[in-house]
Amino acid sequence: MNSPPQEHHLALLGFGNVGQAFARLLLEKENTLREEKGVAFRVTGIATGSHGRVIDPAGIDLEKALSLRQSGDPLDPISTSKTKTSRDFIQECPADVLFESTPVNYQTGQPALDYLRAALQRGMHVITANKGPVVHGYRELVDLTRNRGRSFLFESTVMDGAPVFSMARCGLPAAEVTGIRGILNSTTNLILTRMEQGQSQEEAVAYAQSMGIAETDPSGDLDGWDAAVKTAILVNVLMKTPLKLTDVDRTGIREINQKEIKEAAEKNKRWKLVCSAQRQEGRKSGVLAQVQPRLVEPSSPFYHLSGTSALLQVESDVLGTLTLQEEEPTTMTTAYGFLADFLNVVKNGTSSGQL
Amino acid sequence: MNSPPQEHHLALLGFGNVGQAFARLLLEKENTLREEKGVAFRVTGIATGSHGRVIDPAGIDLEKALSLRQSGDPLDPISTSKTKTSRDFIQECPADVLFESTPVNYQTGQPALDYLRAALQRGMHVITANKGPVVHGYRELVDLTRNRGRSFLFESTVMDGAPVFSMARCGLPAAEVTGIRGILNSTTNLILTRMEQGQSQEEAVAYAQSMGIAETDPSGDLDGWDAAVKTAILVNVLMKTPLKLTDVDRTGIREINQKEIKEAAEKNKRWKLVCSAQRQEGRKSGVLAQVQPRLVEPSSPFYHLSGTSALLQVESDVLGTLTLQEEEPTTMTTAYGFLADFLNVVKNGTSSGQL
Repeated sequence: MNSPPQEHHLALLGFGNVGQAFARLLLEKENTLREEKGVAFRVTGIATGSHGRVIDPAGIDLEKALSLRQSGDPLDPISTSKTKTSRDFIQECPADVLFESTPVNYQTGQPALDYLRAALQRGMHVITANKGPVVHGYRELVDLTRNRGRSFLFESTVMDGAPVFSMARCGLPAAEVTGIRGILNSTTNLILTRMEQGQSQEEAVAYAQSMGIAETDPSGDLDGWDAAVKTAILVNVLMKTPLKLTDVDRTGIREINQKEIKEAAEKNKRWKLVCSAQRQEGRKSGVLAQVQPRLVEPSSPFYHLSGTSALLQVESDVLGTLTLQEEEPTTMTTAYGFLADFLNVVKNGTSSGQL
Repeated sequence: MNSPPQEHHLALLGFGNVGQAFARLLLEKENTLREEKGVAFRVTGIATGSHGRVIDPAGIDLEKALSLRQSGDPLDPISTSKTKTSRDFIQECPADVLFESTPVNYQTGQPALDYLRAALQRGMHVITANKGPVVHGYRELVDLTRNRGRSFLFESTVMDGAPVFSMARCGLPAAEVTGIRGILNSTTNLILTRMEQGQSQEEAVAYAQSMGIAETDPSGDLDGWDAAVKTAILVNVLMKTPLKLTDVDRTGIREINQKEIKEAAEKNKRWKLVCSAQRQEGRKSGVLAQVQPRLVEPSSPFYHLSGTSALLQVESDVLGTLTLQEEEPTTMTTAYGFLADFLNVVKNGTSSGQL
């Protein structure tokens, strides 16, 4: 790179596992970004849920912030100003790009949806790891990017270990996506895999909870909500069709017990929680979207997906079935989605997640 | 789109199966490009190998060109000028973007490499479906794009039914690709599949030839040359490591006969021609790149790939194993690679295939 690197000012709203992993990744990739991409950055704000909010226009010492957070201490000692709320933080932090990873209610997308709206209105690029605001506010947020020269990206929201949206944006331009099919909820896939190894559903859920993969209340996974949210996002973004979360025909895996698992194994089949969407004439939304447990055979790529891996198949008018698969994603892969979105915003001039 | 569409002038160098499929796709997608992408185009030149060369600054009637070509007639009736050679065509055609799909010697990359060099020097964006010039001239051609504001893209050269390079460019920025592994030559995969169904290698080759998939001289496939070319391209582009075609450790499938196929089946295994590359300290190039027949087990995604499908796994420092699979690519999918590259050049400001 011959030109001096552009410096971008970054704000991290949310500093839990994902926010901290992103801070570590920024430190790790700082030289690569500067030397290979001509991109420099300064983190000017970090807002945590219960450990304070830091703003420093001169740049926050990320090592120090990570170390305070690791020891459970508040971040106040390194802040040069006091902000009372996350909303104030968005208004006051001198940043070009907001990275949002706060706790969210996926049935409403709040409060993340309000945060992203405010940040876009303030003129920031917005990058989120939260599915909630995308499924509930996609079109509104894309509209807010228009005529502002700002971006709204969300690579980490679906298959955070695989670049689903970047692939579609750059690899499938002017294509008409006619259908999708996938295993998108890794928690239920892990639970079903453990049940095949002899555990009851309750034991498998407890195992997933002990791994930090399932929530204390596992209903978001077991009842198919997480899978339905991801399906609705893919329909909105890839199939360019407005579809509400409640329009997804949703059945979870609660009814699948050892009896069903064993009967499937006897027929050399496996139960998988399959997400699908396809165009269907006559439906109000134009799309039939479903999340359902399905029996799959060894000839299906779905059959071979174990543990927390995930897989998506995309059908379009221009390519045959295109399959993208990730293996065992981690918090670091989610953080990398943030980094990829950041680079796409500042280097490729990507204006929004819209295809 | 509110702004009036930009009009781009396109030259097609090569008008065989791929060039004609691209012309049909341009006709089919013309309205979508104009209305959804704000992109308009005019094809100002078409050069065939033995049916003449057409230049018309006002725009060539693609329907008429396709119809003449279908009936085996030369294109001269619709040309407003005479050009004697493909080199003259590149110098004289008033175009911004050159789409190259001429017959090529993959051991030298010629004459395509000379064509692409001349077009870039003349200030055109260059998009090729030819592997030869990429494996032999990647770094030189990328260098020619620099400081010219021009692009060199080649999505159709490897897995033409899957957007390998677009995915890497937009989905893996600042990632370090540490290894790749795949089944990239669909002809040998089809031949091995037919041999498992009981055909001899000779019969399977004849079948692939009758399908128009294998060449009259099948050595490019059987001896692993095509797979080695693709492996070397992936090492150069994805792993950012200069590697010559002759640096690929290459073994084809000629030694695999019915005996080997049956012995593998008895052990519930399959033979696949596997391409791989991984960093290796101590090697001159820094990368061990191989094309070899390998026995794969049912637990491998390679095992389930039949017919002309293809699959690529990418290892990186930021994501787990990422798998991309295409099913049964056609000439239309190759043509779509041209279209995707075109849109990436004119809409996303992509400067070169370099990551």
